[in-house]
Amino acid sequence: MIVLGIDPGTAITGYGVVRGEPFGSLALVECGVIRTSARDPLPVRLREIYEDVRALLERHHPEALAVEDVFYSRNVRTTVVLGHARGVVLLAGEQAGVSIYEYPPAEIKKSVVGTGAATKEQVQFMLTRLLRLKTAPQPSDAADAAAVALAHIMTARVPRIGDLGRGTVLALGTRSTRRRKA
Amino acid sequence: MIVLGIDPGTAITGYGVVRGEPFGSLALVECGVIRTSARDPLPVRLREIYEDVRALLERHHPEALAVEDVFYSRNVRTTVVLGHARGVVLLAGEQAGVSIYEYPPAEIKKSVVGTGAATKEQVQFMLTRLLRLKTAPQPSDAADAAAVALAHIMTARVPRIGDLGRGTVLALGTRSTRRRKA
Repeated sequence: MIVLGIDPGTAITGYGVVRGEPFGSLALVECGVIRTSARDPLPVRLREIYEDVRALLERHHPEALAVEDVFYSRNVRTTVVLGHARGVVLLAGEQAGVSIYEYPPAEIKKSVVGTGAATKEQVQFMLTRLLRLKTAPQPSDAADAAAVALAHIMTARVPRIGDLGRGTVLALGTRSTRRRKA
Repeated sequence: MIVLGIDPGTAITGYGVVRGEPFGSLALVECGVIRTSARDPLPVRLREIYEDVRALLERHHPEALAVEDVFYSRNVRTTVVLGHARGVVLLAGEQAGVSIYEYPPAEIKKSVVGTGAATKEQVQFMLTRLLRLKTAPQPSDAADAAAVALAHIMTARVPRIGDLGRGTVLALGTRSTRRRKA
């Protein structure tokens, strides 16, 4: 299973591609950030984010796109503009026909560290360990995106009670697309 | 000058195409709404809005896309989801190479009625008169979108002080894209 994790933002959108099986080994395939210039108008920045996410989907053909859920900041304007960036990320995933899952920050922490109250340092420590890296990915937006992808795979390790009898293991994240017939 | 006005929303996105010259006659070319189902996941709904806006841009080849600025509702979740819809509308405009302008509700009212404190009824009355319609467009989201397009043309009727000596009349809206070489 290859998962593309995205931590959306207008200035910096983090991405992380993680390969792994729910009960097997895990590996970081690629991670990094999409940076846009504050000097550019918002539509130009949205197109850059959209095109870069599309390119990642085409390059890695992930089975799932895991997107960090909106962080409600005190600044409403910032939150609304973040919504614009998330919109074009979800659009790119939908057009690629990939299953899309949304994870709030607390759920990511819980999946990776075991508690929703984990610190950023604890998440980075577990991320580094689980993906057998020497150091945490830099910048932190790239690490955050890798953590979303990892959270998706880790969540799939825990079967839902209702699925135990059926032999299938479903992710616990909020699935926001229906899997379509390819 | 043909202007596509958009009043974005996740459930209902209004659109209105207005043709007119800053100092000439005005006409409503087309207006209506893009409806999406609350039963569909958000990425599916965003793709529908995106594709329908793209189709409108291809059909009418407007010189400008005028988008109503985000309404900050008390419900943060609603406002954030609205940001997603606006994001894909701005992306569609940017990809089509059209100039994009954003107008807050008060500026639309001021351009169409003459005061930013105008009521919805006053806007609809002026819209109906200026576009020589028998009744206001229905539903109200379509009328709101036509009002954004109209506001863009009406704003262009008033030259900026700095433009008077140059013989060019620029729109007063917040221009959010740079015009690109075609």
